[in-house]
Amino acid sequence: MADLPSHHIEFRVRYGETDRMGVVYHAEYLAWCEMGRTEYIRSLGMSYAEMERRGVPLAVAEASLRYHAPAKYDDLIRVSTVLTRLGSRGLTFDYVITHAESGQRLASASTTLVALDPSGRAITIPADIRALLGGSGVR
Amino acid sequence: MADLPSHHIEFRVRYGETDRMGVVYHAEYLAWCEMGRTEYIRSLGMSYAEMERRGVPLAVAEASLRYHAPAKYDDLIRVSTVLTRLGSRGLTFDYVITHAESGQRLASASTTLVALDPSGRAITIPADIRALLGGSGVR
Amino acid sequence: MADLPSHHIEFRVRYGETDRMGVVYHAEYLAWCEMGRTEYIRSLGMSYAEMERRGVPLAVAEASLRYHAPAKYDDLIRVSTVLTRLGSRGLTFDYVITHAESGQRLASASTTLVALDPSGRAITIPADIRALLGGSGVR
Amino acid sequence: MADLPSHHIEFRVRYGETDRMGVVYHAEYLAWCEMGRTEYIRSLGMSYAEMERRGVPLAVAEASLRYHAPAKYDDLIRVSTVLTRLGSRGLTFDYVITHAESGQRLASASTTLVALDPSGRAITIPADIRALLGGSGVR
Repeated sequence: MADLPSHHIEFRVRYGETDRMGVVYHAEYLAWCEMGRTEYIRSLGMSYAEMERRGVPLAVAEASLRYHAPAKYDDLIRVSTVLTRLGSRGLTFDYVITHAESGQRLASASTTLVALDPSGRAITIPADIRALLGGSGVR
Repeated sequence: MADLPSHHIEFRVRYGETDRMGVVYHAEYLAWCEMGRTEYIRSLGMSYAEMERRGVPLAVAEASLRYHAPAKYDDLIRVSTVLTRLGSRGLTFDYVITHAESGQRLASASTTLVALDPSGRAITIPADIRALLGGSGVR
Repeated sequence: MADLPSHHIEFRVRYGETDRMGVVYHAEYLAWCEMGRTEYIRSLGMSYAEMERRGVPLAVAEASLRYHAPAKYDDLIRVSTVLTRLGSRGLTFDYVITHAESGQRLASASTTLVALDPSGRAITIPADIRALLGGSGVR
Repeated sequence: MADLPSHHIEFRVRYGETDRMGVVYHAEYLAWCEMGRTEYIRSLGMSYAEMERRGVPLAVAEASLRYHAPAKYDDLIRVSTVLTRLGSRGLTFDYVITHAESGQRLASASTTLVALDPSGRAITIPADIRALLGGSGVR
């Protein structure tokens, strides 16, 4: 993974993302991962919105998260995304979520996605999408 | 409004609906109103999901809310919904949100919805939908 | 309102903010308004997080929204925020939400907030907070 | 796991939980798991809200999810929760999420929680909480 290119985004924690424990609710991190891979894909030259218009939606098939330290309201968050596996029928992104200013690691996560046909069945990832994503050097 | 039938739902506040102030985040109440009118429509004999399948999605055009007292985690919430206006091109639901056990009023709200055609333009509400909703006695 | 300073933020629509109608779910706009006023307050020289630490949380007491056109996934959104009223016990922000690239108006909204004491009762807004917010020229 | 008691909840998918793909957004399932374990704990004789008031908040340290089939708007969902591990410093809940009417499996998930002290550090789970949770027969 060290040799693969990663992509970074930064944004501030929204008030509504926190819960009564005073920290970010754990489910919000999955939305942050989605934001990270959206911008990762855009950085390769095609928006995910365009991939959907071409009829290749990617659905999350598996997700795993480890929470190391809490994110708090108004914190500046950094999500680093890397495509770590590109198979014929699925692809895996790994994420590291840190406090942008201190560099403290807040969470790490991984999601595996599959391409769907219009009826919602998993299909082989089309060649042009594979070529696009493969531009990152992943295999 | 006193003479119009209302419909009630009850549910518990979810942890993720709270924010760091220790109370329910104000935007969540709009989702609760949506739950209220969904069950109101179902009580008239057709689910909103079925209305959408028939090609008559209803979009929220206006919303207003007044917050009287905070809802808290695990509170049992009651949403009372009433259809207060049924025009040719729009309809208005009013909501009262209370603490189910104490009866304390937490919020009151109103939303106006319009029917859309497939291209997203506001249309006259189809006669069968009007007849269904008119069964509540509203005008 | 024309003479009062406004503050602008821009961000992209997240996937999870959309609903099955293919557009942004109407409750999400309230969170966008919150983001707008957070940055508005920061632009005056104090973060809202700092205001909370000083013991002056602001709670939304009223909100109203008009939806003009739908926001879609990945759209670049612009929220313009202006403080339009600063009373002794409450303050009102108005918002215009537009499509950042086309300038199309998507929604307009207004929220009235009140300052709370630790027990959750509405209090007079402390003088230093009033002075800070009054720096915008509002009355 | 077969011998351990499980607890079931049922509820309908909310409109705002769906995304533009027409199905429930993947992050929402974590909130459903939270609802499942909240009611599981209540069924043992103490609400999670009461556990927090006693100063023993439980924070999610790890989560994993597998998505088998999509949940759709207005579907009746069933979440079955079982406590599968109760250690001195952490506990693990497993979840199976199904379509309540057809029994179709939609997702399976697991979350590991840790008890926190007021400063947010992981602590040994207090004896009375362990005794309460151990009433389920888990070890």
